[in-house]
Amino acid sequence: MLDLAIIGGGPAGLTAGLYSTRGGLKNVTLYEKGFPGGQITSSSEVENYPGITKVVTGMELMQDWPEQSTRFGLKIEMKDVKQVKLNSDKNFTVIFSNGETIDTKSVIVCTGSVPKKAGIKGEDEFFGRGVSTCATCDGFFYKNKEVVVLGGGDTAIEEAIYLSEICKKVYIVHRRDTFRASPVTVERAKHRENIEFVLNATSKEIYGDGSGVLGLLVEQNGEVRDIKVPGIFTFVGRDILNDVLKQDDGSFLCELSESGEVIVDLNMKTSIEGLYAAGDIRIQAPKQVVCASSDGAIAALQAISRALH
Amino acid sequence: MLDLAIIGGGPAGLTAGLYSTRGGLKNVTLYEKGFPGGQITSSSEVENYPGITKVVTGMELMQDWPEQSTRFGLKIEMKDVKQVKLNSDKNFTVIFSNGETIDTKSVIVCTGSVPKKAGIKGEDEFFGRGVSTCATCDGFFYKNKEVVVLGGGDTAIEEAIYLSEICKKVYIVHRRDTFRASPVTVERAKHRENIEFVLNATSKEIYGDGSGVLGLLVEQNGEVRDIKVPGIFTFVGRDILNDVLKQDDGSFLCELSESGEVIVDLNMKTSIEGLYAAGDIRIQAPKQVVCASSDGAIAALQAISRALH
Repeated sequence: MLDLAIIGGGPAGLTAGLYSTRGGLKNVTLYEKGFPGGQITSSSEVENYPGITKVVTGMELMQDWPEQSTRFGLKIEMKDVKQVKLNSDKNFTVIFSNGETIDTKSVIVCTGSVPKKAGIKGEDEFFGRGVSTCATCDGFFYKNKEVVVLGGGDTAIEEAIYLSEICKKVYIVHRRDTFRASPVTVERAKHRENIEFVLNATSKEIYGDGSGVLGLLVEQNGEVRDIKVPGIFTFVGRDILNDVLKQDDGSFLCELSESGEVIVDLNMKTSIEGLYAAGDIRIQAPKQVVCASSDGAIAALQAISRALH
Repeated sequence: MLDLAIIGGGPAGLTAGLYSTRGGLKNVTLYEKGFPGGQITSSSEVENYPGITKVVTGMELMQDWPEQSTRFGLKIEMKDVKQVKLNSDKNFTVIFSNGETIDTKSVIVCTGSVPKKAGIKGEDEFFGRGVSTCATCDGFFYKNKEVVVLGGGDTAIEEAIYLSEICKKVYIVHRRDTFRASPVTVERAKHRENIEFVLNATSKEIYGDGSGVLGLLVEQNGEVRDIKVPGIFTFVGRDILNDVLKQDDGSFLCELSESGEVIVDLNMKTSIEGLYAAGDIRIQAPKQVVCASSDGAIAALQAISRALH
């Protein structure tokens, strides 16, 4: 029986492992199907993790975390978790995709969420080299430059407004001339002088060279338009990686928001006692390394407190 | 008129400054009466800030933060803020103790909280060299050693239980034989084999040498008892540094908890629009650098969003 199972090896999971073991929990295992480090490891430039003053790659930022986290007894196992179940004794069973299981007193879920692909030629090739899914992370790298925002939902329009404070000009490229975003948000964007709406426009190709993105080709009214920008931000939704919480009957182990994020309070407690969520999987996650990391610390302190009851 | 005033220069304030200016806010000033860095700068050993793998002093941990935070346009001014007022136009006025004032659209309060002194001889001399006010931070440094916990409130007893998982033995030294802590918590502590209650005991002196604390002298039933321990954790309450929120009529600008902490939601919003709280001043603050820092980032992103409305 574990004291704590941590599912996911990004900043949230690694910090949960650090705090829980340093705080005295003896049997703590973090399960991650790939290498620990999380989504940030695919970022080419990070300059806003407090205390790391150099501009580093996401890989560089995270490289020492597993060593620091395992220093106090945390075990990390490369295993794919399929499902978490609540038992009648209020403990949990973690079921792996190879059929193995392990029981645990508490669980911290930090499997995150991933941005959906827009499905455009060049999107993968230039990801991290001009194609971004995070304005807070990467907007500043396009200070006084022009960028494209792809999408028509609330996130797309809000992030376009955010970028319009930093960038010289923002093109909002959208397939339709109507928006899923709220009319108020769209109206605010329309009042920004440096936002141009490019509507009824189908994105055809992101192109560039060895240095990164050079522009986006869109088809609009039967003609091809070439928008020359060094940065393209895609906001076409996120997949919340909550599969491990799905139960056999299709319901979820704890309460989720409409979009599938785990509902938590300030202590990262979910609706189920002993089950915590941390990082990008939770509601209102700012999707920043320092925030995910803080969530992990908070959840770990709660798990320790529960173990000592 | 500022876009944002940040009050307090610890990890929360510095990160709020980094995120708000990097996110495009133009006029942002952080006010700190002393040098930036916060309470952590008085810690002699920090090993749980994620990504900083060496054991460093708090001063070393924080030394590069101001440079990183000011890189994107944040101004830091050494000024003592006396009061924050809400104006009828929903902006705020910050009043300094020298009588100057400045108006601002948003305010992030991160003035923190400080542990109260127990008032024992040697407490100041050995602070950071055996005397601690944070079990999460320093407990691990006493792994398999004996420690004293001073106090009889909920925090004292809960932290003693936390420490009992890490340390060989925990003495709870308390002036009375009754507790402010809830009976359930006291009962849990009594069931821990390695916790000894030293009751009706008046702490006389913390003694030690150049290497740090060696023990605590207490008076109990007219006799002096020498408890030889290398670590003494004092939990005799905290002063929440919320003075800047106090209004002329004695009320507070936003809603506080019974103990004076600012009530916030997951977005660090207080009960007043445009006023945010971050770090140790808020309810349920874990009092960790990474958590305060995350709060600052979250509050900054909210202030940006408000500015663009």
